[in-house]
Amino acid sequence: MAQPRYPRQSRCRLERLNTLRPTRRVQSEAGETEFFQDKTDQLRCAGVSVYRRRIKHRSGIAGYLIPGCPETFQYFQKGAGSEKEKSEYEFRQGHGQGHGKQSFRDKHQKIRAFRQGDILVIPAGVAFWAYNNGKAPLETITVADTSSRFNQLDNDHRQFQLAGSQRGVGESKNSSNILRAFKTESLAESLGASRGLAEKIQKEDSRGEIVTVKEGLDLAWPFAGKGEEDEPERKREEEQGGSRGGKQSNGVEEIFCSSRLIENIDNPRQADVYNPLAGRITEINSLKLHSLRYIKLSAVRGVLRKKTIVAPHWNLNSHSLVYVTSGSAFVEVADDEGKLVFGEKLQQGQLLFIPQNYVVLKRAGEDGFEFISFKTNDNPLFSQFNGKSSILKGLPKDVVATSYRISWEEAKQLKYARADQLALFQESSQEQQHRSLNIGAAAIRELLNQ
Amino acid sequence: MAQPRYPRQSRCRLERLNTLRPTRRVQSEAGETEFFQDKTDQLRCAGVSVYRRRIKHRSGIAGYLIPGCPETFQYFQKGAGSEKEKSEYEFRQGHGQGHGKQSFRDKHQKIRAFRQGDILVIPAGVAFWAYNNGKAPLETITVADTSSRFNQLDNDHRQFQLAGSQRGVGESKNSSNILRAFKTESLAESLGASRGLAEKIQKEDSRGEIVTVKEGLDLAWPFAGKGEEDEPERKREEEQGGSRGGKQSNGVEEIFCSSRLIENIDNPRQADVYNPLAGRITEINSLKLHSLRYIKLSAVRGVLRKKTIVAPHWNLNSHSLVYVTSGSAFVEVADDEGKLVFGEKLQQGQLLFIPQNYVVLKRAGEDGFEFISFKTNDNPLFSQFNGKSSILKGLPKDVVATSYRISWEEAKQLKYARADQLALFQESSQEQQHRSLNIGAAAIRELLNQ
Amino acid sequence: MAQPRYPRQSRCRLERLNTLRPTRRVQSEAGETEFFQDKTDQLRCAGVSVYRRRIKHRSGIAGYLIPGCPETFQYFQKGAGSEKEKSEYEFRQGHGQGHGKQSFRDKHQKIRAFRQGDILVIPAGVAFWAYNNGKAPLETITVADTSSRFNQLDNDHRQFQLAGSQRGVGESKNSSNILRAFKTESLAESLGASRGLAEKIQKEDSRGEIVTVKEGLDLAWPFAGKGEEDEPERKREEEQGGSRGGKQSNGVEEIFCSSRLIENIDNPRQADVYNPLAGRITEINSLKLHSLRYIKLSAVRGVLRKKTIVAPHWNLNSHSLVYVTSGSAFVEVADDEGKLVFGEKLQQGQLLFIPQNYVVLKRAGEDGFEFISFKTNDNPLFSQFNGKSSILKGLPKDVVATSYRISWEEAKQLKYARADQLALFQESSQEQQHRSLNIGAAAIRELLNQ
Repeated sequence: MAQPRYPRQSRCRLERLNTLRPTRRVQSEAGETEFFQDKTDQLRCAGVSVYRRRIKHRSGIAGYLIPGCPETFQYFQKGAGSEKEKSEYEFRQGHGQGHGKQSFRDKHQKIRAFRQGDILVIPAGVAFWAYNNGKAPLETITVADTSSRFNQLDNDHRQFQLAGSQRGVGESKNSSNILRAFKTESLAESLGASRGLAEKIQKEDSRGEIVTVKEGLDLAWPFAGKGEEDEPERKREEEQGGSRGGKQSNGVEEIFCSSRLIENIDNPRQADVYNPLAGRITEINSLKLHSLRYIKLSAVRGVLRKKTIVAPHWNLNSHSLVYVTSGSAFVEVADDEGKLVFGEKLQQGQLLFIPQNYVVLKRAGEDGFEFISFKTNDNPLFSQFNGKSSILKGLPKDVVATSYRISWEEAKQLKYARADQLALFQESSQEQQHRSLNIGAAAIRELLNQ
Repeated sequence: MAQPRYPRQSRCRLERLNTLRPTRRVQSEAGETEFFQDKTDQLRCAGVSVYRRRIKHRSGIAGYLIPGCPETFQYFQKGAGSEKEKSEYEFRQGHGQGHGKQSFRDKHQKIRAFRQGDILVIPAGVAFWAYNNGKAPLETITVADTSSRFNQLDNDHRQFQLAGSQRGVGESKNSSNILRAFKTESLAESLGASRGLAEKIQKEDSRGEIVTVKEGLDLAWPFAGKGEEDEPERKREEEQGGSRGGKQSNGVEEIFCSSRLIENIDNPRQADVYNPLAGRITEINSLKLHSLRYIKLSAVRGVLRKKTIVAPHWNLNSHSLVYVTSGSAFVEVADDEGKLVFGEKLQQGQLLFIPQNYVVLKRAGEDGFEFISFKTNDNPLFSQFNGKSSILKGLPKDVVATSYRISWEEAKQLKYARADQLALFQESSQEQQHRSLNIGAAAIRELLNQ
Repeated sequence: MAQPRYPRQSRCRLERLNTLRPTRRVQSEAGETEFFQDKTDQLRCAGVSVYRRRIKHRSGIAGYLIPGCPETFQYFQKGAGSEKEKSEYEFRQGHGQGHGKQSFRDKHQKIRAFRQGDILVIPAGVAFWAYNNGKAPLETITVADTSSRFNQLDNDHRQFQLAGSQRGVGESKNSSNILRAFKTESLAESLGASRGLAEKIQKEDSRGEIVTVKEGLDLAWPFAGKGEEDEPERKREEEQGGSRGGKQSNGVEEIFCSSRLIENIDNPRQADVYNPLAGRITEINSLKLHSLRYIKLSAVRGVLRKKTIVAPHWNLNSHSLVYVTSGSAFVEVADDEGKLVFGEKLQQGQLLFIPQNYVVLKRAGEDGFEFISFKTNDNPLFSQFNGKSSILKGLPKDVVATSYRISWEEAKQLKYARADQLALFQESSQEQQHRSLNIGAAAIRELLNQ
């Protein structure tokens, strides 16, 4: 079930939830970062910080620099492709000689492609970079779990820039290339570089954290420019990860070198709940993407048709952060006192924090409702009020009747009115025969249970 | 050993411990709930909230509504018992037709019997109900672990009422049926019910959280009215749970659908320590009741004869909350500075918080001393000063003599005076031959060690 | 990877790190204890308290009093060695009779030898004593993890004295023998001792926490006086621990009775990184000393030659507390904003807290630099900027060039200048051929990966 996270330091004020919008924008040379800030401290209570990034032109390569992982991607410059692969010794021997761009070869850690709808797992402390090699701007939304068990400091979100600079992480902090902090002499010595090169590296950089690559990147990348579907490769990758991971489970590199860190959540054919009249819901949890086990987060993607209702439910073991990618919904949230703490239209670009165990009811608006929910548990569980596998269905009818002071007939009606439907209902829907499948983990496990 | 719990937010003031009594009483139609409140913040430091409940007349059925657990208890109305069991399809098909009380059948999740002396495990976020079907009033005491790793919010205790209402949870909060929060229209749609029925469900309910069932509950319950011993059934249940649980360990339902959640702690024949002159002590930890592993709590029941001494000891990996069910004891607690932070008579109905590693010595009063201790670890460990398996016995005599500036003769006396006794001593007892067994986990493990 | 620890209660102020020195000295009869205090709350942020102890004359026996562990060390007085071992029954029968020092035998829990360079694991709540049986004064440095998951109270460090007394733990607290807290009558009864003996035990003790043993201790100790190498015995011990531990993993005693709690970190032949020109680094993590798994701490010993550079690196999953045992180094630490938060000479006897993910660069001074680092993770991981298995080597050259606005030639230079060296570089070193091995865990795992 749930795994421990670092708790909030003081009492959460949750008498009133508010939608959040990005309020602080930081411009970089080739994109921008926008921070969701919040005077009511809801994100502090959730133990996360959230930001949205837009990267101009060209989309989707990610690099992780994981200590202990080998440099398995080797690169030969165009024209040098016919050369036989040389041993690492020969390779390095060569670097002292004068050789221009033509003969230079490179080797680096594995890089991975990503595309729209992908979830990227970025473990704390692991250096990371990304490059937009697509044709359209790239937009990402990041939930950083400052309450993670891997964070041994306070709940502040700290981002270390290994290069470039950033203005405005958190409140008003600027952060620049951390190498700028060191004495030039120390840096030059430790890099084995000239003082001049060390000075270049330490030079102030006004480009921000997102920078333009003028000619595009030349990378050792199996798929670059081929436009191949990379799914099969991904699967293979994961399988290898699984078998290797079995040997030892002690280090970051054992866990992450060969494991899958990216998974698509927006493929309709992979939906967990599908109802042609109501929409679809897809959950990526650690059963589907094993690396989520280590960051203790998961995500749910919902694409709801207009007027679809998501039955009242609560998250047993996580908070939820709902970000609207398209459309709108009227969302109601009830707290432990039975009071409405949120009852508003939630619109595109807005973020809503729904605390653990708070009860939610959603009704998609006229344009439908598309969202991505981030949950603070890698295997989130929820309880729903009605529908198949619900609270009402599990209660004896006498208990329902007595609890709500209603007749047996009415209790029966409550228990079975939506009994063959699961999570998504169409308002006043006449169709009783449509297929409805279960949501995410609960469904999978119910099947396994049989 | 210990598992992580959410910590206290700030410094614990523990210079002086105080007995606690229920100070806030909330009356319901069919019972009352009393909250142990505390101005000195001891319970906040312990990371728990405690309340006592009394449920009038008729004792002991508990229902858990666990997401993903099937409705395995099926009910046929009297007179309909001879009918063959119909398939679920037929069953649900029928519910649209007019049929009165006589022909109505029900299906619900498993319900479980409980009786005096039982410990009930209630996982966070799981909907729960109970019904007193006995002849005497039912009294329960609940320790809610607000520091649980499953709680991702602050340390406030939040109780969600799915029906009924409650006044006074925590400080002065009222809580009512959370369905009252939603717009009637949204609720009706999502329940597939008429607006009239939704309005009934949302009607204010002054009965509180404990309500009268006029005619008693008709339940699909294998033991109802038969007066059978339900022990064998419980055991079978647990075994099934064990084998099923082995398949997968990812979800609440895998853990809880088939596992034992109730265990008796007051059966003298199950005692862990027994001394006919001194009394008995029984511990229910996660080795005995596996589901305690998930809530990280355990309990110890003590029934001590008058003037029995519980040797100085401390809890290595948990706090302890001692509630007196009968009699009294003179209890002394020493802190890390060697100062007495508690030295009073502890009486029936009182609660005492004993912090982790604080040293305790108990002497039962003239009427004996019966208590239940709740410990904030599912496998609690303690160290005792003397008696078998003690600190003094494990120390070289020279270390004892030097440390306490006493002679070898005296060191020897300290080490061996109580060497064949374990945890319970009679004051000035002459009997050296009485059997004494070890307390709980320590004893079991010592045996396993050999 | 990292395991949860209790977090800091409020925001860490880390704009400026400071070296710490012991500022509060508490004198005892046979030694002294010095506390590292700190007005800037860095140790509170690290979640530890640190003290240094000196024990006069005569070095190194440690006793752990672990609940449930048997008394396996039996002692016969000189002259009684030829006697056959009597059963425990006979043994205890005898203690009522008058017998002086000559015929007295003792039994106690296992005791363990330690010597210079040893790391001792002391689990929370376990009673512990130590005795200096060497010829030189003994100096120890202790990092107490107040953020441990085993601590269920606040982050204060609480030390319980079972005998003796201590002045000045934490701020200004005195702590004395906790038995002094109890009523003499209660204590006498529970110890089965006379009132006179109980009074002796409770007498005020001005000797402090370190006391003189006039004639030395007579102990049941296999190695006493023989001067044997105890390494082989230690290994055997651990193996037994391993096999026993496999049976059950529920209790402290299962974990600790037979497991190795002491390991040497200062043996040059056991170094993880060795470079004859630069020095050596040795890490003791839970792969080497399994009991560290339970306290979630580890240690790194460094012995660096003059002018050696430790390349810029950060700890991914732990804080680090560096204590200088000899020499000095110029240490620079950069925070997430790229600001220098420390840039000073770190000298013998000083302690420096380096927060998780802060980037560090060390240059040994003219006298070399010897240190012991305590890390708040039993399997610490770090990322280094350059050298073998580094960030720069894992990045595509185009990403390096674009990020730092340098040419491909320069990017190549950065990637490969130190590519065959690992963690320790000599300033302006000409030698390119010297062997360099990897640091600790990373190296082991990289090997396993292949």
